[in-house]
Amino acid sequence: MSDTYLELANSALGKKLFSAMGLPEPVVLVREDSQQAHNLSGQVLIGASLGALFADKVGSFLEGTSMQISDPLVKEKRHLIYDASGIATAEQSAELYNFFQQQVKSLPACGRVIVIGLKPSAAAKPEQGAVQRGLHGFIKSLAKEIGRNGSTANLLLVDKGGDAAIEAPIRFLLSAGSAFMNAQILTASTPVAPMAGDWQHPLQGKTLVVTGAARGIGLAIAEVLARDGATVIGVDVPQAEEELKAAMTRLGGLPLPLDITSAGAATILRDFCSAQTSSLHGIIHNAGVTRDKMLSRMTDHQWNMLMQVNLGSVQRINAALLETELLDNGGKIVGVASISGIAGNAGQTNYAFSKSAVIGMVETSAESCAARGITINAVAPGFIETQMTAAIPFFTRQMGRRLSSLGQGGLPIDVAEVIGFFVSPQAAGINGNVVRVCGQSILGA
Amino acid sequence: MSDTYLELANSALGKKLFSAMGLPEPVVLVREDSQQAHNLSGQVLIGASLGALFADKVGSFLEGTSMQISDPLVKEKRHLIYDASGIATAEQSAELYNFFQQQVKSLPACGRVIVIGLKPSAAAKPEQGAVQRGLHGFIKSLAKEIGRNGSTANLLLVDKGGDAAIEAPIRFLLSAGSAFMNAQILTASTPVAPMAGDWQHPLQGKTLVVTGAARGIGLAIAEVLARDGATVIGVDVPQAEEELKAAMTRLGGLPLPLDITSAGAATILRDFCSAQTSSLHGIIHNAGVTRDKMLSRMTDHQWNMLMQVNLGSVQRINAALLETELLDNGGKIVGVASISGIAGNAGQTNYAFSKSAVIGMVETSAESCAARGITINAVAPGFIETQMTAAIPFFTRQMGRRLSSLGQGGLPIDVAEVIGFFVSPQAAGINGNVVRVCGQSILGA
Repeated sequence: MSDTYLELANSALGKKLFSAMGLPEPVVLVREDSQQAHNLSGQVLIGASLGALFADKVGSFLEGTSMQISDPLVKEKRHLIYDASGIATAEQSAELYNFFQQQVKSLPACGRVIVIGLKPSAAAKPEQGAVQRGLHGFIKSLAKEIGRNGSTANLLLVDKGGDAAIEAPIRFLLSAGSAFMNAQILTASTPVAPMAGDWQHPLQGKTLVVTGAARGIGLAIAEVLARDGATVIGVDVPQAEEELKAAMTRLGGLPLPLDITSAGAATILRDFCSAQTSSLHGIIHNAGVTRDKMLSRMTDHQWNMLMQVNLGSVQRINAALLETELLDNGGKIVGVASISGIAGNAGQTNYAFSKSAVIGMVETSAESCAARGITINAVAPGFIETQMTAAIPFFTRQMGRRLSSLGQGGLPIDVAEVIGFFVSPQAAGINGNVVRVCGQSILGA
Repeated sequence: MSDTYLELANSALGKKLFSAMGLPEPVVLVREDSQQAHNLSGQVLIGASLGALFADKVGSFLEGTSMQISDPLVKEKRHLIYDASGIATAEQSAELYNFFQQQVKSLPACGRVIVIGLKPSAAAKPEQGAVQRGLHGFIKSLAKEIGRNGSTANLLLVDKGGDAAIEAPIRFLLSAGSAFMNAQILTASTPVAPMAGDWQHPLQGKTLVVTGAARGIGLAIAEVLARDGATVIGVDVPQAEEELKAAMTRLGGLPLPLDITSAGAATILRDFCSAQTSSLHGIIHNAGVTRDKMLSRMTDHQWNMLMQVNLGSVQRINAALLETELLDNGGKIVGVASISGIAGNAGQTNYAFSKSAVIGMVETSAESCAARGITINAVAPGFIETQMTAAIPFFTRQMGRRLSSLGQGGLPIDVAEVIGFFVSPQAAGINGNVVRVCGQSILGA
């Protein structure tokens, strides 16, 4: 997956040009090597507040990886993990300050900051819950300070029962797979299903559906899932049948050309899955369209057609799958929302409505899914370099890239990796999460 | 309160200059006339989806005001209220589209769009809850389309039991007081205390504390509360005693020079209030400082002192007040957060932590406060024209102003009016809300 912007920005001519234009010279982010995916490497320093609950556990599972646990007194480049769960008062926040004030300069390029805190509802007292909530503002500010170096900062909140579920999110945040996930808050809660699995090939022997799999982000998702061992059922519109078949042949997957908005499509998809496997591991609702227009000039068709692709069909497919036990005990549902669904966008009342409703789907279904051993989560991509965004006028495209802490757009694989994490069996404690994959775009609301 | 930027932007020379520079020519927002505050005027069109729950009630209480209910078939400039609570499916969202697609052009300058929806947890089914969540994305997109005209769009979500509490938020959103509140989501829930009160002077006979009241936003808050009938206990540091006394004399309030971070300050404040009244109506925790520095260069003092002013003292004062029954049965606690506490800001790890914790305070205390008849809410100001922001370099200042849908900064009174709404007795169903007062700044996270 080439990125012309990065290539240009990092060429000798490009550097001069960009510098003259005042444009950022973004760091080339380190991404997963498809041969050595999920490998952890480098030094990591683990710090903890007084009364911290999780640091020991983090230390012990990281010792089983190829990372080196760093000594605070040694000067070396290292990733930083800080367990802030013991902080209960405004005064005690000084411990957090002390650690990062001293250590932040030791981050390598593309370094990782991970702060671990308590979900406010899991705090002993409301006053502690309030103070723990301060970690949001801290991490988002710190991410803005370290982004130029390609480094990221994310927050893992542990809810009641979530201590059993922290290994997968911490491994993911330390891995190259989280390169473009920045300033986000993950919540770990009681695992809804067994977490056993191979860290290198977590999806071995598992079958997952990806809609819109013929190209773009959907294809990248299929590639990542296949890399992790899965058999992918790739769905796309009949017009894309050839591309879809070629991709699925290459990945050892199964093509299912289907217009998901057509009558009976949800049942067709469900029955296709049932015929392949008695235990579907997951579905990624990636298919989506835009039909941008200012509302006063938007046609009925632009509203209604989009709503069916992005929302109606997703709800019908979930309903059809959940009528059966195909996903029970370990299944994964993943929605693909958008920053537009969070912040809104002029000309996208239709798209933003649909993507905001996808977030609503995650929020309203997480509890009932958990009761069946299923997790439901969503990604909200920011500016991702695709054929779609390549069509955006140059200046707007530059703004989309520059207005993030990492100073660049993401790649389809960045979205795919977060989804790969969501659907790994080890992430059974990650439920009801909505994660932006945006490099910390400043757009929000 | 003068606004030099708006004056310049709207002068003949200014218009030419701004246009040549590509800067926005922001509409002068209509704000409350201090003689006729809370007056509602103009035309309003009320639309509703099939199965809408609240439109009739809205119509009947608006008939008791000086607003004119507009006829859909008449062409005239009018504010728009749409009750979307009946929308349960992706298909039915077409009703929302139809109404606004036809009506959005009829908004006057500084018009108001109010959409009423259901809090997802109050929806009959999870599928409806998901679709209702789509209203977030819709309103935020629409606000971006209509902002150039000074118009705003906000969403009122009704939780279980909240139908009794919708009049105050709808009146506020229609009033000039909400001029700079844009693209926000208010939630109305079961009123925690009686809602009786005079719409013109809702705070008549009531006493409220405002910290940091000597100048800036705190002074504006004191002015608005006094305008609405309140006796204000103005707190500020001893160094500002003269300014504080002059302001309180002018407003018929009571000055209390006090360093809120000093030992025993919370008790001193509490006892001062007890001596004045047996029933304190509310406290506005406005006092706050910034001490900006990149984290690696921030001093202990910059972290700790700020944390005590912005967070520690707030928690101690609340604890001292809540040890007594001073606030019970109708009292109001209001925090002042910041967009930085939501989005983070480079150089503000300390400030963002403290302001994010203020949001946490609202989230973690709303339920226990409700049980005592108290509401707790917070405002999160965006770019507000104050002495503090006047010190920001010109270009950065322009960016702060321009990067909002209304194309301008807010005034201290805009923040004060939202607080005035929070503390009005009629807003007893508004609890646990965090509202940005930012004109829909694009900054978020």
